[in-house]
Amino acid sequence: MLSRSRLSILRSLRQKKNRREQQLFVAEGAKLVSELLDSSFEVETVYATVRWLRENSKLAATARETVAVDMEEMSRISSQVTPQEVMAVAHIPAHKLSLDSLGDKYTLVLDGIRDPGNLGTIIRIADWFGIENIICSPDSAEAWNPKVVQASMGSILRVRVHETNLEHFFQSLKKETALPVYGTFLEGKSIYQSAFPKSGGVLVIGNESTGIRPETEQYITEKITIPSWSVSSESGPESLNAAVATAIACSEIRRNMAVKGYQATKQ
Amino acid sequence: MLSRSRLSILRSLRQKKNRREQQLFVAEGAKLVSELLDSSFEVETVYATVRWLRENSKLAATARETVAVDMEEMSRISSQVTPQEVMAVAHIPAHKLSLDSLGDKYTLVLDGIRDPGNLGTIIRIADWFGIENIICSPDSAEAWNPKVVQASMGSILRVRVHETNLEHFFQSLKKETALPVYGTFLEGKSIYQSAFPKSGGVLVIGNESTGIRPETEQYITEKITIPSWSVSSESGPESLNAAVATAIACSEIRRNMAVKGYQATKQ
Repeated sequence: MLSRSRLSILRSLRQKKNRREQQLFVAEGAKLVSELLDSSFEVETVYATVRWLRENSKLAATARETVAVDMEEMSRISSQVTPQEVMAVAHIPAHKLSLDSLGDKYTLVLDGIRDPGNLGTIIRIADWFGIENIICSPDSAEAWNPKVVQASMGSILRVRVHETNLEHFFQSLKKETALPVYGTFLEGKSIYQSAFPKSGGVLVIGNESTGIRPETEQYITEKITIPSWSVSSESGPESLNAAVATAIACSEIRRNMAVKGYQATKQ
Repeated sequence: MLSRSRLSILRSLRQKKNRREQQLFVAEGAKLVSELLDSSFEVETVYATVRWLRENSKLAATARETVAVDMEEMSRISSQVTPQEVMAVAHIPAHKLSLDSLGDKYTLVLDGIRDPGNLGTIIRIADWFGIENIICSPDSAEAWNPKVVQASMGSILRVRVHETNLEHFFQSLKKETALPVYGTFLEGKSIYQSAFPKSGGVLVIGNESTGIRPETEQYITEKITIPSWSVSSESGPESLNAAVATAIACSEIRRNMAVKGYQATKQ
């Protein structure tokens, strides 16, 4: 049976403050936890049914400890609507961000993406398109929020998400690199006409309702836009969802690079 | 005060069976209801605060009736987490699907998109890219589900969503038109290398976890794929979210057509 202290630790990890203090996060579900145990992440505890632990004994052995729980207990500790048979508590990795490493690559900057589902989806998109680093403003959803972890479908284990003051980041970027900074706006150069150089760049995505902040806008070197073909041009849609816009821009960046000879890893 | 019979009608409309029987749906929020009242949709009842009704008297007059409610009543009838000050009940339009009208256009076919949020997002994407018709298999999420209506952000008022037996649809399409049928798969021709003709076509998107069914696959004339540039090619992401894949494919179709001289309406 789960002790009270374990219950209270698990519950406390639903709050950002506690995750930050303890540098721990929670992952749920067989697929995600298997990927986690198979990764270089340090897994503290695996909570799982006896069956899961028996069938995955080798994998489970890489965790510091395992705790057998029944489904009723699982439903008490799970933050999912449908509790799954396994859950893990792991250490938040200390990703270091080096500006030197951003050359010849595309990096995402999220200027206040508030919805955890959107952030998770964006991390999954970044993973697909080989974007290694995502830089989030401090008011963005937090990467280790259980909703983000789950929505990323394991991609959070591969993409490095950094939280930092964007003003400082852009100032250093400008000083130390010559990377272009693209920002998605409702008006700008068509993404289909933008030349995304092989030498890399930074793509800024703004908040779901208010877009890119003026404080960030000043660092944008090229405003880009996704053209609309809406039939009703007067009363058409106002915008695309932030994750959808990210996906379209990333795809267009990659298509551009493919034309220049940089090939996909899988197709 | 809201009568019991009104309360029970509104509650009943949360179920697909009742929406279908009464051919009514619910829309919530100032922006969506304003667009609805401004459209050709037939609005039965507007439930709103006295303030909203006063400030929007002209618009509200286009509804068959208006009912003033307070925020406490609104929270009882709303299906949103945060109830808004206006809600409307409107008639589901009887969209007719004519195969003749699909030429020179791209049409989306959804083969079992189950998540209402995904369907709403796909409708919004279709609206952005000027796709006029979406054809859904009967086991897809239902277009008039409140979650779909809200996630579509008003695009459900502009894009015509049809629910039909896909086998019958594809048989007629094959017999009566020469339109190519593209399907997104994990393996296929790169979307960046596909020639999407100006003469139009059909794009099939499969279920979130199981993809396109074999029964549908037989009608696909060109399998297409979104290449991945994932850094970890062995343990990379398995797929993209269905709405994200739709967005990338629609963007690529439009870019292709733009190259051929068909211009965006807004950019």
